[in-house]
Amino acid sequence: MIQIICGTNRNDSISKKISIIYQQILNELGLKSNIIDLSELPDDFVFSALYDNAGKNQDFNVFREVMVEAEKFVFIVPEYNGSFPGVLKTFIDGLIFPDTFKNKKAALVGLSSGIQGAGLALSHLTDIFNYCNMHVLAQKPKLMHIEKNMNNGSELGDLYTGLLKEQAELLVEF
Amino acid sequence: MIQIICGTNRNDSISKKISIIYQQILNELGLKSNIIDLSELPDDFVFSALYDNAGKNQDFNVFREVMVEAEKFVFIVPEYNGSFPGVLKTFIDGLIFPDTFKNKKAALVGLSSGIQGAGLALSHLTDIFNYCNMHVLAQKPKLMHIEKNMNNGSELGDLYTGLLKEQAELLVEF
Amino acid sequence: MIQIICGTNRNDSISKKISIIYQQILNELGLKSNIIDLSELPDDFVFSALYDNAGKNQDFNVFREVMVEAEKFVFIVPEYNGSFPGVLKTFIDGLIFPDTFKNKKAALVGLSSGIQGAGLALSHLTDIFNYCNMHVLAQKPKLMHIEKNMNNGSELGDLYTGLLKEQAELLVEF
Amino acid sequence: MIQIICGTNRNDSISKKISIIYQQILNELGLKSNIIDLSELPDDFVFSALYDNAGKNQDFNVFREVMVEAEKFVFIVPEYNGSFPGVLKTFIDGLIFPDTFKNKKAALVGLSSGIQGAGLALSHLTDIFNYCNMHVLAQKPKLMHIEKNMNNGSELGDLYTGLLKEQAELLVEF
Repeated sequence: MIQIICGTNRNDSISKKISIIYQQILNELGLKSNIIDLSELPDDFVFSALYDNAGKNQDFNVFREVMVEAEKFVFIVPEYNGSFPGVLKTFIDGLIFPDTFKNKKAALVGLSSGIQGAGLALSHLTDIFNYCNMHVLAQKPKLMHIEKNMNNGSELGDLYTGLLKEQAELLVEF
Repeated sequence: MIQIICGTNRNDSISKKISIIYQQILNELGLKSNIIDLSELPDDFVFSALYDNAGKNQDFNVFREVMVEAEKFVFIVPEYNGSFPGVLKTFIDGLIFPDTFKNKKAALVGLSSGIQGAGLALSHLTDIFNYCNMHVLAQKPKLMHIEKNMNNGSELGDLYTGLLKEQAELLVEF
Repeated sequence: MIQIICGTNRNDSISKKISIIYQQILNELGLKSNIIDLSELPDDFVFSALYDNAGKNQDFNVFREVMVEAEKFVFIVPEYNGSFPGVLKTFIDGLIFPDTFKNKKAALVGLSSGIQGAGLALSHLTDIFNYCNMHVLAQKPKLMHIEKNMNNGSELGDLYTGLLKEQAELLVEF
Repeated sequence: MIQIICGTNRNDSISKKISIIYQQILNELGLKSNIIDLSELPDDFVFSALYDNAGKNQDFNVFREVMVEAEKFVFIVPEYNGSFPGVLKTFIDGLIFPDTFKNKKAALVGLSSGIQGAGLALSHLTDIFNYCNMHVLAQKPKLMHIEKNMNNGSELGDLYTGLLKEQAELLVEF
């Protein structure tokens, strides 16, 4: 079971759409996956589920358990202010350390409206996951101008679909 | 008026103690400052003050206004999971863009219990602030083993106090 | 006198052309500048001018002197293998430490044939210069698809010229 | 056959000593390895073996062939000016792209006289290798205060030896 993390809590995000597309790709490869949508986190988890309150928020604990049991992850990461969304790092800060990520594997996908494709965001996240002793797949698609590459607002063009398929196949063997 | 941002929402944080020490240093240099403590943010700001809700949370708007009016900032940044706390980036994601940081100046201070001194955290934050067109002072003290360098739990040793004073003086001219 | 460093030793590089264009822009602003072309470095400087041989290569010493006397720099940085050219860092490794960069100012420009615009290269260089206590201007133009934006192989299109002019004006006040 | 790259061309470097120690560790694990010492590169390779001259320097070609045939690498990386030595990146710039690193595996070790342990250097290198589609092992020992941790100038203390052994074992399975 691969956990796909939709890296923002924005409603109706493009990241959510990409997460669903990625799940379909994994499905075609015969792999089961689950989408973790940060928009479903408890509204006050930044205060009720971290530090002295770690483990005390039952709704957040459901996320903690799912994450700690997974072996492989896919992170869909939109670019906010030149890096990843703060909510994604806050989510990571609330997870069980070091068991959630230690010696596990992750694939990262970057999205941006502009031209960077979240390149710096993926670099920063790689630093964080490596610190947590999680290996990161070298291939990290950077989907720039994402809106222009979505047809009808929900279908991804062939170029980007191809990049995600290539990454997904590599993740299987990683 | 220099805004000092205590970069975590943890209660009774060392970052808060360093923020107070930094304010005293600025005071001795004849500079007025204000401490923004992320532990005072609204509990649900990650959902109630971002994206479609930007500007709608009156309690968070107070922070937005203070930040957009400042010209210089000091960020006190503890190391969480190899980078800065997620709540700090989430706070940044909720601010007014691009006016909050554009062509302004910032000084960064890193803290860690371990040996890194938040070095990667400060690198990541520099990327983010440069993306927001804010200049970052080159000198960024990395206060490793911070607990061991606090006397009586609240006084900072001479070495680290000296580093902060040196940075504060440079910030005045920056 | 602003030193413009052409960040590669490749012959007839686009970086050299951008360096010349940047010099013209500075000239129009009434500022004198000089271009340091890494293609003119001694062929064996990596061995004859570093470590135990620091200061012993008279041809390299000319570069050392020019660099240590400057107050402001512009670095034109092409993307090689996802970062800056190794020769640029080797050049930096041969300079006088800490006087060459300490408390000085730099502006960085990134170039790439692909879509990254040397974004990671500029982030890495910022880390290095900040380590050397040199302040880096927040605005760092990332000139992606540079060949497509050069007319007749030597003139830069309006968009990129505008970005360089904007940066140059900011460097004057920085 | 694992290639161990001594990441500096400095004579009698500590990196060389660590490279030899790492080879012994791999030997005890039953793995064959070879040390590539950048101090043995042709003095003028920065000019005679890159760009238009790629493949034309027979002495450098020996290095190119050894690197392109390897499947796993260990990079011993001293900290110079807050990052890796320029000569290491220049060496990478002269290798065969994309075959040298694509879908291969690397382990990185950082060294420093100061307190950083080459942390930023390893982050920068990870960016570069990931760009080249090479996977980097999450565990990257940062050997700070390296001189103080060398006995008799050549033996590594137990703490650091343990970190290298742990990494080497992980590299076998990576």
